[in-house]
Amino acid sequence: MNLEMISEHACFDGVQRFYRHQSSEIGLPMRFSVFIPRQAENGALPALFYLAGLTCTEETFMIKGGAQRYAAEHGIMLIAPDTSPRGAGIEGEDEHWDFGTGAGFYLDATEPGWNKNYRMYSYITQELYAIAQTLGAAKGRIGIFGHSMGGHGALVLALKNPQLFKSVSAFAPVAAPVKCPWGQKAFSRYLGNDKTRWEAYDASCLMQTLHNPFPQGILVDQGLKDSFLQEQLYPDAFEAACEQANQPLVLRRHEQYDHGYYFISTFMEDHIRFHAGRL
Amino acid sequence: MNLEMISEHACFDGVQRFYRHQSSEIGLPMRFSVFIPRQAENGALPALFYLAGLTCTEETFMIKGGAQRYAAEHGIMLIAPDTSPRGAGIEGEDEHWDFGTGAGFYLDATEPGWNKNYRMYSYITQELYAIAQTLGAAKGRIGIFGHSMGGHGALVLALKNPQLFKSVSAFAPVAAPVKCPWGQKAFSRYLGNDKTRWEAYDASCLMQTLHNPFPQGILVDQGLKDSFLQEQLYPDAFEAACEQANQPLVLRRHEQYDHGYYFISTFMEDHIRFHAGRL
Repeated sequence: MNLEMISEHACFDGVQRFYRHQSSEIGLPMRFSVFIPRQAENGALPALFYLAGLTCTEETFMIKGGAQRYAAEHGIMLIAPDTSPRGAGIEGEDEHWDFGTGAGFYLDATEPGWNKNYRMYSYITQELYAIAQTLGAAKGRIGIFGHSMGGHGALVLALKNPQLFKSVSAFAPVAAPVKCPWGQKAFSRYLGNDKTRWEAYDASCLMQTLHNPFPQGILVDQGLKDSFLQEQLYPDAFEAACEQANQPLVLRRHEQYDHGYYFISTFMEDHIRFHAGRL
Repeated sequence: MNLEMISEHACFDGVQRFYRHQSSEIGLPMRFSVFIPRQAENGALPALFYLAGLTCTEETFMIKGGAQRYAAEHGIMLIAPDTSPRGAGIEGEDEHWDFGTGAGFYLDATEPGWNKNYRMYSYITQELYAIAQTLGAAKGRIGIFGHSMGGHGALVLALKNPQLFKSVSAFAPVAAPVKCPWGQKAFSRYLGNDKTRWEAYDASCLMQTLHNPFPQGILVDQGLKDSFLQEQLYPDAFEAACEQANQPLVLRRHEQYDHGYYFISTFMEDHIRFHAGRL
């Protein structure tokens, strides 16, 4: 396992930690952050993975999300991975803000060059999932949420693994990546041209193949002043797929809100409460 | 006045805004941020200035402090200036992280070179104070708080202007700058070698010249794992000065907490509530 704690900060009567470790799935050092509330003294706790958006790191959510206060209240552990491998040395890795470094899209790449390190899907569902349990996350009481590219990640990881994730929610997710420029760019380069492979990482496509995978519902918040809404996010496609799959979905559309953390932090309490009631 | 709104984000049912303007006190463009809660629809509101620490900007507090939630609850406007002039073109301005850019120390410099632009004291107490009122801050219902260098700033601006600031609190303030390396470096370069000038910007020295300037008390939070505590902060000196001045002070020492925003955000609710009760 070989976890190295980079820093630790007292926070809302619990601890905010940053770790580095040599990842076997990624083949490179990876960083992640954990908030462990005081209640951990009394044994394993429910836990919530948060997947961040393009250009973010393992720090973004912990600094900007304002989630620790609510996690402390409900006794929930928070775990946030980085958004991609770093320093893989692949040609083109650092040329685009929406592809490569900071943009792993939470999938296992199949294309040559990328398929060795860009394995965020297996990294989170297997390696980091196991680490979370060694840090005190209770087996069977783990949920997942995320924002934008990370909202896509949260939905996809949950839909593909309902046995691992008991609850799922998202802020402004990339809800139908096969239809949008971010998704098409990432999927074609990481997965190649076979679009059936793309559909396996598209929440709206996946939902169409399922029947009510989360009977306790899915929560999605979307700002209507989000400048990425029209071109990149497609919440309507996910909503239609949920309806077809008989999946209860609360999709809240907020008139004034945009894509950033001022939006996310406003509705953070609702998301933590949503998961707390299901974990 | 000539305010240019750079951006606006819905946040906790209010608005988070960033402004730029040509400052007459500073002689350069300055930026500041404002959170305006929904209650502003009904008229002028109590307001709270927040002064940030070394290397911070007008964004730091709004991103990391988690204050908007509580300000929305209590109907308080938040205003955060930048921490210094930017791009004054003075020799040595960008050579040190703890002096010059990002380190204005909330004073009016008197030394040649610095005395033209480095006038954060007058900028905040006069220019930004007037702007706050045009944005909806209620005259006579304005408080101030801050962190580290900004805790120093909040205490000093309040002690020198109790007619302007009705309430004051601080997180880990530089409470006796004449005694510490940060203060000595900044004061000697901005104010010259006459130490009576330094004392006019030192909260502990100022308090010794006053008698109970804030009868409703002052709140200070200090982490005991703060790596700057021993060398830079001197809360004990401020505590002793308050006792001598018959100034009620609640100085809370928190065993596990350090100097950063995980500490600040933990106690943010208490500070907003403290000011709300006094504004």
